[in-house]
Amino acid sequence: MTGNSSSSSRPLRNVLFIMCDQLRADYLSCYGHPRLHTPNIDALAARGVRFDRAYVQGSVCGASRMSTYTGRYVSTHGAMWNFVPLSVGQKTLGEHLRPHGVRCSLVGKTHVEADLEGAKRLGIDVSQGEGRLAMEGGFEPYARDDGIWPPGFKVSGNAYCDWLRERGYESDNPWHDFANSGRGPNGEILSGWQMRWADKPAAIEEPHSETPYTTDRAIDFMKEAGDTPWVLHLSYIKPHWPYVVPAPYHEMFGPDDVQPAVRSEAERQNAHPVLEGFRRDTASESFSRDEVRRTVIPTYMGLVKQVDDQLGRLFAFMRAQCLDRETLVVFTSDHGDYLGDHWLGEKELFHEPIVRVPLIVADPRAEANATRGTVSDALVECIDIVPTVLQALGIERPSQWLEGESLLPLVHAHDGAKGKEFVVCENSYAFRDAVRLPIGQPVDRCHMTMLRDARWKFVHFEDLPPMLFDLESDPQELVDLGRDPAHAAVREQMLARLFAWLRARHRFPTIAPAAIEAWNRREREAGILIGAW
Amino acid sequence: MTGNSSSSSRPLRNVLFIMCDQLRADYLSCYGHPRLHTPNIDALAARGVRFDRAYVQGSVCGASRMSTYTGRYVSTHGAMWNFVPLSVGQKTLGEHLRPHGVRCSLVGKTHVEADLEGAKRLGIDVSQGEGRLAMEGGFEPYARDDGIWPPGFKVSGNAYCDWLRERGYESDNPWHDFANSGRGPNGEILSGWQMRWADKPAAIEEPHSETPYTTDRAIDFMKEAGDTPWVLHLSYIKPHWPYVVPAPYHEMFGPDDVQPAVRSEAERQNAHPVLEGFRRDTASESFSRDEVRRTVIPTYMGLVKQVDDQLGRLFAFMRAQCLDRETLVVFTSDHGDYLGDHWLGEKELFHEPIVRVPLIVADPRAEANATRGTVSDALVECIDIVPTVLQALGIERPSQWLEGESLLPLVHAHDGAKGKEFVVCENSYAFRDAVRLPIGQPVDRCHMTMLRDARWKFVHFEDLPPMLFDLESDPQELVDLGRDPAHAAVREQMLARLFAWLRARHRFPTIAPAAIEAWNRREREAGILIGAW
Repeated sequence: MTGNSSSSSRPLRNVLFIMCDQLRADYLSCYGHPRLHTPNIDALAARGVRFDRAYVQGSVCGASRMSTYTGRYVSTHGAMWNFVPLSVGQKTLGEHLRPHGVRCSLVGKTHVEADLEGAKRLGIDVSQGEGRLAMEGGFEPYARDDGIWPPGFKVSGNAYCDWLRERGYESDNPWHDFANSGRGPNGEILSGWQMRWADKPAAIEEPHSETPYTTDRAIDFMKEAGDTPWVLHLSYIKPHWPYVVPAPYHEMFGPDDVQPAVRSEAERQNAHPVLEGFRRDTASESFSRDEVRRTVIPTYMGLVKQVDDQLGRLFAFMRAQCLDRETLVVFTSDHGDYLGDHWLGEKELFHEPIVRVPLIVADPRAEANATRGTVSDALVECIDIVPTVLQALGIERPSQWLEGESLLPLVHAHDGAKGKEFVVCENSYAFRDAVRLPIGQPVDRCHMTMLRDARWKFVHFEDLPPMLFDLESDPQELVDLGRDPAHAAVREQMLARLFAWLRARHRFPTIAPAAIEAWNRREREAGILIGAW
Repeated sequence: MTGNSSSSSRPLRNVLFIMCDQLRADYLSCYGHPRLHTPNIDALAARGVRFDRAYVQGSVCGASRMSTYTGRYVSTHGAMWNFVPLSVGQKTLGEHLRPHGVRCSLVGKTHVEADLEGAKRLGIDVSQGEGRLAMEGGFEPYARDDGIWPPGFKVSGNAYCDWLRERGYESDNPWHDFANSGRGPNGEILSGWQMRWADKPAAIEEPHSETPYTTDRAIDFMKEAGDTPWVLHLSYIKPHWPYVVPAPYHEMFGPDDVQPAVRSEAERQNAHPVLEGFRRDTASESFSRDEVRRTVIPTYMGLVKQVDDQLGRLFAFMRAQCLDRETLVVFTSDHGDYLGDHWLGEKELFHEPIVRVPLIVADPRAEANATRGTVSDALVECIDIVPTVLQALGIERPSQWLEGESLLPLVHAHDGAKGKEFVVCENSYAFRDAVRLPIGQPVDRCHMTMLRDARWKFVHFEDLPPMLFDLESDPQELVDLGRDPAHAAVREQMLARLFAWLRARHRFPTIAPAAIEAWNRREREAGILIGAW
């Protein structure tokens, strides 16, 4: 990405950085969903730029989010999958912001796993101060809630669960038993962890469910924030499973609103062994059945609709407080959901429903007027969000850390501003025995790397053939050309790009380019002249 | 490297890990020097295995040492050159040892640059405890001394300088003015920073010079260490420049002992632009003159001879204390010195005089009897030292961190034990304006990577042709085949290896392979079943 910097712009005061979990781009009306109307997110797109080809850097929550929070690819930050600690050696958005007097707070989910081994090794006090914040991925946890406690789990110390109990939802695990379960005819709990109950309303009053609760906390934060500039990461757990939503959202959509699955019988013949492995997964087997799709997808749509309604409430509050004039808004997701496409459930691989996410950037400044309401087809990545946030606030780019590029040149329509030649997403199937063991791969040879350019999508595997899709002739990605002799040259070109990309990783974050450039002068000034006769 | 583990061996108590600075392998008699007799190092080789093809991972001190101390390649640990901080995210030998009750202490030089920015970001107390040790690269600084204060520098707080002052060497910078300078006819200081004075004796009594002082501290450490197992990193600053040595070492060798420079006129024709750049360096221009070589090299030899004599004293002390029976001894260097070979001075590039270093491993246990006094031509690397040390002490290998392989299977002559297919060394010319600016490269495109297998040495540059040497037909590396059309296939093979090597970097150090393997079981036990109907 090139283009002039926007450093001459008046810096903004705040950033609202909204993320959904497991939200596919195509489940918003501004991205083309024919039945699910999301007027508030669409209105945000009308105020900003909607990026039509935005990609995540990891295809599971943890890896993707750590990329988005560090501005670095998964191979660079090293948190390769869910529940893998983010090394103390990584610098996050909050750590870039705080020295500039900007508060960086969290409402909702991050999936950050603390590097407690690293903290112990370095004698870091994780109970307070910088050490505590580092264990939170650099976010001040104003209201952290990562959710996902299985049925029967005794939840203690969670603010949302305590808040539910105060409102009479008495249980060891009110998150599961009320917010994420329905009720049977005899009052029995119908757990959302079983998808057959997805069409039942959650056993909770709508304002008490996760999405309104999370929105309330964001409003609380804005009310309390005062004069300190802030970046608020508002991070909804939904529409991530368990697929359960309270009334009336549980019945807003029905089987008729479910779009046909993108899949073909031919896809199942001679499939790539890793793809075959993921198709053996429970979620894939479930979502391959029409009954499951007809039951679950309307609820998934209801969850998205609820997010949209809550964002409408939040945006109205911000307008009433005049916060909208001083605040950059970024809206995105951490990855999508197969929902049965390609005979798959959940995520982990690299088809468009997973790696392509919504990304909207709304800049209230006059410099962005020319692009308001436009759609950009530039290839962009979620690692571009950190540099965008820093530039919007007038903070100099820490080049040695950031692998993303600010989106503001595109938003400000600078001459020459353009997207990337290709985008990258990574994942590992090391954690999935059902995939790994039949192939016989050791855990350290399970890394997968996707490169996608304007036409081609290429996925590299160790010791296995690649995948290749021609998105021009096959936009639904139904024909894997990874072993097709006619496409050897394309694969070679993509391999060469992967090689160059790997060499360009920011492996040296402890020294800034400017410090390197100044080295010879500093050496001379220090009187160091080596090898003189 | 393969072979059975030596985990069944009785663990050793201690490790003495000796490093010289800027010592070429071929300046020891056991490695073939015809005039420089080093009987004490030769005797160590006779007690152990002398590795004839051992390579450093960086071609300057800082990067090389950080690889040796972390067991990780430069691209992995990120300290790309001298004075580049070692990230707090990196785990060092000492940090691997201490949780097992093993002390890891330093006498001498490490060149570790503290990651103070990282420490501040994480709220680490660098004045004490783990934080302080982390800033020392994981070593307990029993007697740290990195040397290298330019003439005129006011040295304060340095133990060696204070020790010299106590002995009457009164000066702001007694390190420079006495240990590293001679005297003229009128008592004037003849600075060792000017190589023309290299043949003058240092203005210091020999027992007060750096190498005996450092050896004294190592003996002090061993006397005081008591019953706690230890790893002592005894790290001599010498024979690194300033090339000055006290009497009688200054006159032990003369111009007749100087070996001919390895260089040819043809080498200067159509040379690689990076090589040309380094030849414009002051040290290269000086060492290209015979007068300089005749003056400096005898002193370099004297410095090596002094190290050998001091090691004789240390080994005698250890024998007298019976420490030799319980102590693994490793001897190596951080890189070599061109000394005029290839029309170059100093280091930074990848010819054998720089990247090939002495490496001797002496294991007192019976398992090593079969290899005592033998020479191994296995390709090995200095990142193999950390895993060797850990295995010798019976500590389980932390695979997610270590990129090296233990040398003990070779030392214990296990079936199938062998060296590596190729070794790797990296450097950057970003810090050298005289090289970089004429080429017009930005600082982030100056990384160089060498791969050397049994026959070929290949050096990859960004945006420039590679270098290629056939070590079988051209062991002196006088003919660069990097642009020779007849060798395109070899270059392709080396590029493919570099690509595979990059993909195999240990990018995910915060999770152990065993934890990944156990993931599915833990998930089931936690009651997490995703996507069930």
